[in-house]
Amino acid sequence: MKKIEVCPSPESIHLFDLKGKIVVVVDILRATSTMTVALAKGITKIIPVSSVDECKEYKAKGYLTAAERNGAKVEGYDLGNSPFVFLDKDHSGKELVMTTTNGTKAINLSLDADEILIGSFLNLSAVSEYLKESQKDILVFCSGWKGHTNLEDTLFAGALVEKLSSHYVVDYDMSIIARHLYSKAKGDLLGFLSHSSYCIRMETKGLKNDIAYCLQLDTFDNVPKLVNGKLENACLVNKV
Amino acid sequence: MKKIEVCPSPESIHLFDLKGKIVVVVDILRATSTMTVALAKGITKIIPVSSVDECKEYKAKGYLTAAERNGAKVEGYDLGNSPFVFLDKDHSGKELVMTTTNGTKAINLSLDADEILIGSFLNLSAVSEYLKESQKDILVFCSGWKGHTNLEDTLFAGALVEKLSSHYVVDYDMSIIARHLYSKAKGDLLGFLSHSSYCIRMETKGLKNDIAYCLQLDTFDNVPKLVNGKLENACLVNKV
Repeated sequence: MKKIEVCPSPESIHLFDLKGKIVVVVDILRATSTMTVALAKGITKIIPVSSVDECKEYKAKGYLTAAERNGAKVEGYDLGNSPFVFLDKDHSGKELVMTTTNGTKAINLSLDADEILIGSFLNLSAVSEYLKESQKDILVFCSGWKGHTNLEDTLFAGALVEKLSSHYVVDYDMSIIARHLYSKAKGDLLGFLSHSSYCIRMETKGLKNDIAYCLQLDTFDNVPKLVNGKLENACLVNKV
Repeated sequence: MKKIEVCPSPESIHLFDLKGKIVVVVDILRATSTMTVALAKGITKIIPVSSVDECKEYKAKGYLTAAERNGAKVEGYDLGNSPFVFLDKDHSGKELVMTTTNGTKAINLSLDADEILIGSFLNLSAVSEYLKESQKDILVFCSGWKGHTNLEDTLFAGALVEKLSSHYVVDYDMSIIARHLYSKAKGDLLGFLSHSSYCIRMETKGLKNDIAYCLQLDTFDNVPKLVNGKLENACLVNKV
C-alpha cells in the first residue's frame, strides 16, 4: 500500500528520501493558500524564489512580483502574500514571481521529488483527489515558521492524512500526531488556531481576515503543481 | 512570566537558545525512563556517553556499562536499557555508563543549558514540582527517533506543559500541539501509543512489558540532574 509521511518543518526535510515521491508543500498562513487563490483566479504561472534579491531581478525584467517577510509586504514589490490581492483585483493572464518567509523556501528544498504540489485548506479535496489517483508515496512538507513546527501546517497535514486514510498507510509518528490534532480541531479551525503563535502575530498586524479566509475548506478545485520551475494548475482527470 | 518551550527532535535543537534555561531531556522509550529507575533504585551516578566506543573505554576501566542501539542491547556490554534491569537485580552503589540511540545524544546536545534534568512519566510530578520552584525558562527536549519527532516523547512534553500551565506561558506552537495531544491521550496512554512506530517495532522484539512500565505515572519521586557530566538525583526542597 502507498505511504504518507509528514515532515514537520524544513529542519527535518533531509531525513526523508524525496525520490519517486509526491511532495505536498504547505504554508497555510499564507503562501500556499495565496498561491492556490492566485492560480484559481487567473495567474498563469508562479515562479517561486527563495530570496528577495532574486525577486528583485525578476522585477527589473518587468514581472509582477510578490514579496513577504515576517508577515508583511516587502517595500518595493507589487504585492505581499495576502489572498485578497487576487480576490480584490484582476491580475489574470500574468506570470507572478513570489518570495515568502517560509513557503517558497520549502518548495526549493523539495526539488528532488518526483512531483511537487501546493496544498491548502482552500483546495484540500482537490489535492486529496489528485493523490488518490496517483501510485506514488506522499510526503506532506510543512513549511513551519522559521524552522519551527507550527499549528496550522500540522493541521493541514492531519486533514490530508485523514482524507487519504483508506488509500495510504501512515509512516512515522508525525503523521499520527497531525491526524489526532486535526480530529480535535476540525469542528472549529479558527477557534483552535486562535492561540497559535502566528495567528497572534498576524492579528496584531490586522490580518485577521486573511487567517479566516485561509482556513476555509474547498473554495477552489485547482491543484498547483511545479512544472519546469513554475507553478501552474495541474491537469485533473476527475474534477472534484 | 516564565516560558516553557518544546523542541520536537534533535534536528531542531539549534533553533533554541539554551543559555539560562532548564532543559528537560525526554526519551520515554526507554532511556530517560530507565535512567529514572536506575537512580531511584540506588545507582549513584550515570555517565551518559554518545557513542558505543566511549562506552567501551569505560568498560575497560571496570565501569558497569549499558549500551543500546535500535532498541536492542549491544553485545559485549553489561546491560541494555530496559528499566527491568534495575528492578529485577540490585545494582545499587555503582556508577553506570550509558549510551542509547537517541537519549544520551540529546543530553550531550544540551550542555549549553543552565541545568539539565531527565524527565519520564515515572517521575512526571517530581520533575514538575522541581520546575515550579525554579525561576528559569524551560525547554522540553524530545529525543525522538533518529531525528524524527515521536509520539511518546511529544506526549510527555504535553503532560509537562499541562502540569505547569498555571506557572508558565507556552512559547512556540509545538508546546500547544503537545498539550492537545496529551489531553487526547491521557485517559489511555498505552492504547493511544499502540499505533506508534516505536511501539510496533518494540512489540515485535518482545518489549511490550517495557512499554507498559514506562507509561506509568509517578512511580518515583527522584529528579535526575546532570552535575559535572554525571546524572545524579537532585536535592529536592519539597518532596512530592
